[in-house]
Amino acid sequence: MMFSEIAEQEGVDENKLKKRVERGSVVLLRNSGRDIQPLAIGEGMRVKVNANIGYSPDYVDVKKELMKAEVAVEYGADTLMDLSMGVDLDGMRKKIIEHSTVPVGTVPIYQAFIEKKTEMSKEDILKMIEKNCRDGVDFVTLHCGITLDLVDKLNERLIPVTSRGGSFMAAWMIKNKQENPLYEFFDEVLEVVNEYDVVISLGDAMRPACLRDSSDELQLKELFNLGRLTKKAREANTPVIIEGPGHIPLDEIEYNVKLEKKICDNSPFYVLGPLVTDTALGYDHIAGAIGGALAAMHGADFLCYVTPSEHMGLPGIEDVKQGVIASRIAAHAADIVRLGTKEVDDEMSKARGELDWKTMFRLGVDEDIGERYPELLDKEGCSMCGKYCALKIVREYIRS
Amino acid sequence: MMFSEIAEQEGVDENKLKKRVERGSVVLLRNSGRDIQPLAIGEGMRVKVNANIGYSPDYVDVKKELMKAEVAVEYGADTLMDLSMGVDLDGMRKKIIEHSTVPVGTVPIYQAFIEKKTEMSKEDILKMIEKNCRDGVDFVTLHCGITLDLVDKLNERLIPVTSRGGSFMAAWMIKNKQENPLYEFFDEVLEVVNEYDVVISLGDAMRPACLRDSSDELQLKELFNLGRLTKKAREANTPVIIEGPGHIPLDEIEYNVKLEKKICDNSPFYVLGPLVTDTALGYDHIAGAIGGALAAMHGADFLCYVTPSEHMGLPGIEDVKQGVIASRIAAHAADIVRLGTKEVDDEMSKARGELDWKTMFRLGVDEDIGERYPELLDKEGCSMCGKYCALKIVREYIRS
Repeated sequence: MMFSEIAEQEGVDENKLKKRVERGSVVLLRNSGRDIQPLAIGEGMRVKVNANIGYSPDYVDVKKELMKAEVAVEYGADTLMDLSMGVDLDGMRKKIIEHSTVPVGTVPIYQAFIEKKTEMSKEDILKMIEKNCRDGVDFVTLHCGITLDLVDKLNERLIPVTSRGGSFMAAWMIKNKQENPLYEFFDEVLEVVNEYDVVISLGDAMRPACLRDSSDELQLKELFNLGRLTKKAREANTPVIIEGPGHIPLDEIEYNVKLEKKICDNSPFYVLGPLVTDTALGYDHIAGAIGGALAAMHGADFLCYVTPSEHMGLPGIEDVKQGVIASRIAAHAADIVRLGTKEVDDEMSKARGELDWKTMFRLGVDEDIGERYPELLDKEGCSMCGKYCALKIVREYIRS
Repeated sequence: MMFSEIAEQEGVDENKLKKRVERGSVVLLRNSGRDIQPLAIGEGMRVKVNANIGYSPDYVDVKKELMKAEVAVEYGADTLMDLSMGVDLDGMRKKIIEHSTVPVGTVPIYQAFIEKKTEMSKEDILKMIEKNCRDGVDFVTLHCGITLDLVDKLNERLIPVTSRGGSFMAAWMIKNKQENPLYEFFDEVLEVVNEYDVVISLGDAMRPACLRDSSDELQLKELFNLGRLTKKAREANTPVIIEGPGHIPLDEIEYNVKLEKKICDNSPFYVLGPLVTDTALGYDHIAGAIGGALAAMHGADFLCYVTPSEHMGLPGIEDVKQGVIASRIAAHAADIVRLGTKEVDDEMSKARGELDWKTMFRLGVDEDIGERYPELLDKEGCSMCGKYCALKIVREYIRS
């Protein structure tokens, strides 16, 4: 029953969907304890968009984060990740799960590290993952792929680590001179999440933080580790998503997607951006939309939004809106070529040809836009060309 | 002497540059009567960005358009096109040329059509082109490629014509039942522009106005016409640029660029967007940056900006800024892979690793961004992670 609804929503054959879920090329996000519609991500599905929310240690404001969550979903986010850091993380997590009709993800290691720093034990980590699952999160990012041999080479990079969870695991491994427990005891992690049907998003601790470090040995060695873990997860029937870069030049995007699909046996690919330049400070949502569209065209399945405030601070509410819309444009542009879903584009173009502003405003990526151009509703044409509108001239001369 | 300066600026060998200019794969924009630095566009050059300015019949405000021109150049536009429509077009054109240190382009048919509508004669058109050249414009867009056989098929499209100049020529041809004089008497056009070393930008009257009409017979037939005209222009030693789409889905961008290069013998390609979805109303600068980056990666040389107000009205000053920045991000992302020019990215990343905000703000695409985040200058880290900054943790544990 669940499959038929999802298949219909995604416009795919139910049996195909089932097979892909069995194979692991599609995952369904929903904690067994949650009463939401499961979300399908992966092969042949619409490209999905995630919005990160959550406060920081310096600005704890639960209400504002819940507003951001609402705005994100309103403008088209398919999932939310609560990346809160600071006090009362249990309370925040419960609130966001309670308020959300879309799947929610978390990074349990944040809280584990805040509570015990490098003193945290394997048991502390497993308990924290379990607590998140019990609270109802639908997917968890776990930085399982960073191993001791990688940590030894961090100094080779211009920016060693930008992944927050990755830096926590690296710090732990350096301090304790021990292998990453999430890697070493991955079987135990699988047991925990399986009890709740929680999907693991295998984090990319080694995602490049700048173009200089893109597609380097550290990034790809971690990807091979994630490939090994994917195999184990498949054997335990745990669905996984693979997280990916990061900062990647335009011409490396296609092979990065193909490598992920090859090494991780067609697991869904979840990319952050990718950002195609390091210089778009204040405009990283645009650099990310460029990279995200290209990645999704080549097979990435899940885009983590990037907001205009990326690299500078916690996003404000308007940043969240801008970030979601930019990612939605990228995701839709890719869906057009992956799935041929351009019905809305055709409707929009028909309305455009008829200078039907009301319909155009309704169909656009941001329904608020009409409020910024109220004068158009009473007009035939627009202020760009006035009476010399190409569309009007066409009507006058060509269609007559 | 001129070549050596340009070669140095573009970071290419002087002889290579000369050969490309001779061959026509690079054009130099500068009217022989103007005292500006010529701008090289084409094979092996940095990707250039054009900003359209100019008032509309409904809002004639010369001062505001000159301000837009200033803002456009400040944020990185390499050229300006004055697309003014309405009264005193001669005055506006002279003012923009007088105020600009970058090459200026125009579309002479606008004024010719406004003055005489479909009564304009071949002589009227040639005289208008000459007037523009005499006034000092560095390049002119001429819709020479739309021919009678194409006009007959316009009704096959969802949106027949979106090009303003294209609609004027189509109207003229339908009314007069005659072939496009710009096509038929192209030799005479060449004589006019050659006297002033003005570059012809061969307009794409048939550029698709929506994804539904992309890469269709009309578009490609016009491209073959432009290929024929390119050959004639080469014989007359007139440098040409080819204008291109438009609204094009992601997976058609690469072959559209390759077709242009093939059919028009490697002439520089000047694209508008391309927009990868029709639905990004209010955000077409983002849809255009996605398409522009991809087009430029595959060989497009010159990006016409698209502003957030595209499809809705004349851009305001902030729209111009946003449009230029989005196109610059796209152009730079492509330059990184075309030319390997990522020095700024590396500098930015170094500053980022050191949490050196002052340098980051200086190197970013928009130097004003620092003003929106003044608190960062006194900080180590940012409000995203506070003391749990991955970069700081790296320093504490990993680099020690």
